[in-house]
Amino acid sequence: MTHPSATRTARLRDLLEGLRLDGVLVTDPVDVRYLSGFRGDDATLVVGRSASLLCTDSRFWEQVREEVREVELSRVTSEPLLEHSAHEVRRVLGSGARLGYQGAQLSHASYRTLRRVHDGPLRDVGRAVTRLRVVKDEAELALLRRAAAVTDEALGRVVAGGLVGRSERDVAWDLRAEYHRLGAEGEAFAAIVAAGDHAAQAHALPGERVIRAGELVVIDTGARVEGYCSDITRTYAAGEPSDELRRIHELVLKAQLAGLAAVRAGAHGRTDVDAAARAVIAAAGHGDDFGHGTGHGVGLEVHEAPSLGRARGDRLEAGMVCTVEPGVYIPGVAGVRIEDTVLVTADGCERLTVSPKELQVVG
Amino acid sequence: MTHPSATRTARLRDLLEGLRLDGVLVTDPVDVRYLSGFRGDDATLVVGRSASLLCTDSRFWEQVREEVREVELSRVTSEPLLEHSAHEVRRVLGSGARLGYQGAQLSHASYRTLRRVHDGPLRDVGRAVTRLRVVKDEAELALLRRAAAVTDEALGRVVAGGLVGRSERDVAWDLRAEYHRLGAEGEAFAAIVAAGDHAAQAHALPGERVIRAGELVVIDTGARVEGYCSDITRTYAAGEPSDELRRIHELVLKAQLAGLAAVRAGAHGRTDVDAAARAVIAAAGHGDDFGHGTGHGVGLEVHEAPSLGRARGDRLEAGMVCTVEPGVYIPGVAGVRIEDTVLVTADGCERLTVSPKELQVVG
Repeated sequence: MTHPSATRTARLRDLLEGLRLDGVLVTDPVDVRYLSGFRGDDATLVVGRSASLLCTDSRFWEQVREEVREVELSRVTSEPLLEHSAHEVRRVLGSGARLGYQGAQLSHASYRTLRRVHDGPLRDVGRAVTRLRVVKDEAELALLRRAAAVTDEALGRVVAGGLVGRSERDVAWDLRAEYHRLGAEGEAFAAIVAAGDHAAQAHALPGERVIRAGELVVIDTGARVEGYCSDITRTYAAGEPSDELRRIHELVLKAQLAGLAAVRAGAHGRTDVDAAARAVIAAAGHGDDFGHGTGHGVGLEVHEAPSLGRARGDRLEAGMVCTVEPGVYIPGVAGVRIEDTVLVTADGCERLTVSPKELQVVG
Repeated sequence: MTHPSATRTARLRDLLEGLRLDGVLVTDPVDVRYLSGFRGDDATLVVGRSASLLCTDSRFWEQVREEVREVELSRVTSEPLLEHSAHEVRRVLGSGARLGYQGAQLSHASYRTLRRVHDGPLRDVGRAVTRLRVVKDEAELALLRRAAAVTDEALGRVVAGGLVGRSERDVAWDLRAEYHRLGAEGEAFAAIVAAGDHAAQAHALPGERVIRAGELVVIDTGARVEGYCSDITRTYAAGEPSDELRRIHELVLKAQLAGLAAVRAGAHGRTDVDAAARAVIAAAGHGDDFGHGTGHGVGLEVHEAPSLGRARGDRLEAGMVCTVEPGVYIPGVAGVRIEDTVLVTADGCERLTVSPKELQVVG
């Protein structure tokens, strides 16, 4: 399959017109990949009303010639990347061009270089270029589905091998090994495997701690397939859990289903989806034990737009892919989180991760 | 062992005095880790003449309280990290403070936030804070030695399992698996395993390509132990190589030994070390086939100061840790690179990676 860079660049050009810019210097490496197909680090992409140019250095020359089509290539030699790119902007867009830049993805030192070299107006486009990625196209959905399928399969295999008596670190490793066997590039992010009171830390790092019977185990993991991520969390019972732990799991599952039910094109990440999940947890008196947002977008980055937080949210559109992942964390006792990656549709959502969610008791 | 943050912060305070600054806002996450011991993302460190303050958010709160001692902690709530940090700078250093910032490790958008909130002079300290890490202390050397030992051990085990008939990707995976078994955190970087003409790309990504008898195989890999990296490259013969391939390997080995012989405190990365290795390769008529620098520093980052390049180099000091890694790449034929990580000493260097370098013929 050819990389759909032409279609994506055309959308960027419409944006340039709307912003009354002659071109934009793309410095976010994920945006460079999205727009050009180039997977390496250390590249910039100059997109004008008609010309496009990718700048990178000799380390990536063979790779960029394989990966990038329909874009002029410019080889960085002695100058720093940004200085080279700024000179190329002038060559390609002409003197005095109105140039957009990505202020949050450009260092202040690089900005000063750009300001020194470029002789036209500069304008921070904020997240405008990155937002082009928020609605996924068919090529992306195919990869997101594959990443989710690999994640479900790997998680199922690892849990089937048992949890009691194993270290968190070893379980996390087994997920990585399954991703490798299943042909994924690797993990989308370092997996969380956290048992018992350790799981009360939402971002616990898997350690040598051995999983004991009677504990709940949070596993938060995802595979990466051709750059695209998946993100799932399930909470398992290692051996028979107490009634209290069962109740917490039931509560979080109810909240997650409420969150999922609120997802649809037109719904708002904060006031609809986060609110729906949070209301269930708050009604049970655990509002203070749910200290993070309900979800985030997933694509080439495992955390990207849209936001479905308690402080900030975006309006959802059909074709966005996001997570729904409420949790309850009780210090010294346990943590529970349940998360799916879903595709937003006109009248609801389609789950990409489909592993069972009812509390599984695992030996 | 307590984290040596107090000693390191004292060195930073000497630097502040030399630069006539009242404080510095550290935004490079590796520098934050080096100075405070905090391993999480999304933190800033404010260091004044007497006070130190680390800002991070609730996701990292448990972790930061375990990892960081002797530094005041400030919890980011609703504001963005940089805005919160800028307000804290004012509270801790006082109004009108002369503040240093890291222009290459601060986005332009964040700089504007800082400029808006901070009411005193701002000054880009460039790489001055990062350079504090260039000479390693005893705690760091212990970890660098462990990372190198794990790397040697893993490489030996994987190669002993044979190369012919295996895919590059599977060999790369086996290295990762050995790092896990040996208790490392993981890879310091994605390993390069490249066979035959594929190895003519210095940054080849391991693929499904199967290693065939008669090919040379470049393996460039390193483990990470408690944040610290190792970096080694060896080139193996998968089955009996041709005389031509043997000669290229001999040439690169001779160049690597010449580079190593030039390393000592006071030597210059470009005019001494790179020049020594490059002269050997150029004398054999392969100057154009050695398209990268001879080495780089290794520490919490796998590529850091000092530089030992053909365009840029730093003067070496005792206690620096760097690589020496010349290579010859012949498009369509083969690539050879040989690399060690070494500790610079007063009168030479000590190799941290000690795997054999003579051409090994592997089945």
